[in-house]
Amino acid sequence: MNVTIGIIGFGYMGYYHYKKILPKTDNFQVLAAYDVDASRREFVKGLGLTSYDSLDEFLKDDSFNTVLVSTPNDSHLALVLAALDAGKNVICEKPVSLNADEIEQMIAASKKNNKLFTVRQNRRRDGDFLMVKNVISEGTLGEVFRVESRVDGSNGIPSDWRRVKKNGGGMLLDWGPHQIDQLLCLIPSKVVSVYADLLNLKYEVDDNLIIELRFENGLSALIEVFTSAFISYPRWHVLGSGGCLDIKDLDGEGQIVRGIVEEMEWGLHLVDHWGPKEPAHEPTSATRTMKPRPEHTIERIQVPKIAQDWQHFYFNYYEALNGKAELFVKPEESLRVMKVIDVAFESSRIGKSISCDI
Amino acid sequence: MNVTIGIIGFGYMGYYHYKKILPKTDNFQVLAAYDVDASRREFVKGLGLTSYDSLDEFLKDDSFNTVLVSTPNDSHLALVLAALDAGKNVICEKPVSLNADEIEQMIAASKKNNKLFTVRQNRRRDGDFLMVKNVISEGTLGEVFRVESRVDGSNGIPSDWRRVKKNGGGMLLDWGPHQIDQLLCLIPSKVVSVYADLLNLKYEVDDNLIIELRFENGLSALIEVFTSAFISYPRWHVLGSGGCLDIKDLDGEGQIVRGIVEEMEWGLHLVDHWGPKEPAHEPTSATRTMKPRPEHTIERIQVPKIAQDWQHFYFNYYEALNGKAELFVKPEESLRVMKVIDVAFESSRIGKSISCDI
Repeated sequence: MNVTIGIIGFGYMGYYHYKKILPKTDNFQVLAAYDVDASRREFVKGLGLTSYDSLDEFLKDDSFNTVLVSTPNDSHLALVLAALDAGKNVICEKPVSLNADEIEQMIAASKKNNKLFTVRQNRRRDGDFLMVKNVISEGTLGEVFRVESRVDGSNGIPSDWRRVKKNGGGMLLDWGPHQIDQLLCLIPSKVVSVYADLLNLKYEVDDNLIIELRFENGLSALIEVFTSAFISYPRWHVLGSGGCLDIKDLDGEGQIVRGIVEEMEWGLHLVDHWGPKEPAHEPTSATRTMKPRPEHTIERIQVPKIAQDWQHFYFNYYEALNGKAELFVKPEESLRVMKVIDVAFESSRIGKSISCDI
Repeated sequence: MNVTIGIIGFGYMGYYHYKKILPKTDNFQVLAAYDVDASRREFVKGLGLTSYDSLDEFLKDDSFNTVLVSTPNDSHLALVLAALDAGKNVICEKPVSLNADEIEQMIAASKKNNKLFTVRQNRRRDGDFLMVKNVISEGTLGEVFRVESRVDGSNGIPSDWRRVKKNGGGMLLDWGPHQIDQLLCLIPSKVVSVYADLLNLKYEVDDNLIIELRFENGLSALIEVFTSAFISYPRWHVLGSGGCLDIKDLDGEGQIVRGIVEEMEWGLHLVDHWGPKEPAHEPTSATRTMKPRPEHTIERIQVPKIAQDWQHFYFNYYEALNGKAELFVKPEESLRVMKVIDVAFESSRIGKSISCDI
């Protein structure tokens, strides 16, 4: 069975799916679209698709088996439920919902109607993320104790509904679902604590944020989104007992620095100088905490780049639709993401960390 | 009145005070020392100082008016109390104590005996810190919303008592007092929340840590000490609404990046491309969150270096001893530092943030 698609919301992302993301094979066909905006409906007609101005009529069209929802965040719930109840399979853009309760309703509707339901977590196939995943699984860093996921910039928030609270704007619902989903994929353990600090510097929605996650297995993770940071830090900073990985940005410029001498000899030097002897090196021992390692005690490894592969999501969806594979993004995984987001909003609101079991 | 000094603990720091930190003027004279170690006592004699193997005898020596305590952390309380009760003024190395309760006893003893008591928070006069202080007070960054204070390295903990729990080892009691004291000097507001994650990766004491502080005025601050980070981040990262300051290390290589165009025009571009038009630039709008600003929208300012000035502490102490100035480091300020440290230890122990009023 081919994947035949009707798109709800032919805005930037809807068109982008049609034009760029969907694989260019016969297995994937966009046939129809529904949009509330008249000019977009005209545009859709020009592409040769069936264009609807009524959701009911759109959902009655049995030429397509899959609905792609790519509308502002606050409209996902009603649209996903309507599509599932109309017997369609559903792919929803992220964030799938405004909170965990909404996606639980979606999952229930998906089960009730026995239809596929998945969330487009495309950044599971970003090159930078796949590099991090590989490096961690290869053990190159020793025992990883902390993962820092940063999205830094000084461009503010895009000037559309992403700035509007009632539409589900703000950076926690924008980059948050990607960063949290990636961390949950990387770290096979439950989230036991969330500490979030969401700032509203320029908008009514959160525009700068940090979240500290703690996992049951002892790892900690940072999620950072700054839209007011005029100096950016790398996209990834992964700390292990034996080495560190930094990946600069989405292009995947990545480097590992590893220790090849287990214990630094300066500790022993310090013993020599402990007591009434002339300090040979540094003014105070503490300063040496920051001293760069001599080059002969480390190795620097350039990490091979991995290409982004967003079509993978659709190829998997085709397999799942034909009963040959499990969904790449399972709705229960997206539910976990939304649970973490719920707790993060609440943590920031009350100004305290929140213990959880997610 | 000259500052005449007897040193307790003629180890690395004691000798370093004698040899390097104390101003070379007649107003400062080291006359005696007490140490539990015989070889150090011999060394002290060789310098022409009176050398004691008994604390009582040392404290009965009325040739000096000031005791400098530079011993392992767990011995400070008894030594400071004994010195104050013997009628000496006291300068204590940091961390002044293992907890807030101990320094409260010291402050009480100082008041009871009407003697000066101060803690050597030398890093208030580090060049990098003075640069941060200047930049913030000049308003160059706009409204500062976050200060990040990092001490990163991969050298582990010095191989002395700093690795030993009962001696008050660990990085929270080593770099913590400096970083917390500096932040309390920078941010004129109460600490209302502490979230700490202290790790024991290689030692029985905390060797890698992050602490999130929240202040009543809305600012947040990060304290980070990594001794297992093979890639180091800058010593300071100060984020303001209009610009960002990074200072690389204690040498004070510092740069400001400031926005000179208030609102990025890309937001408007996005409006153009919102809807069914060809995406002109980026594959997805969200990616633009991380896009570096065009150079014509920012300015880069090299921050003038400021020299470290650790003698300032002693010059002030001389003034204070002669009733001409207040102490540069007031014991109540060090009490605040120790209160934050207490809460940080407890926060990490229970795995939760702790609300406070410090």
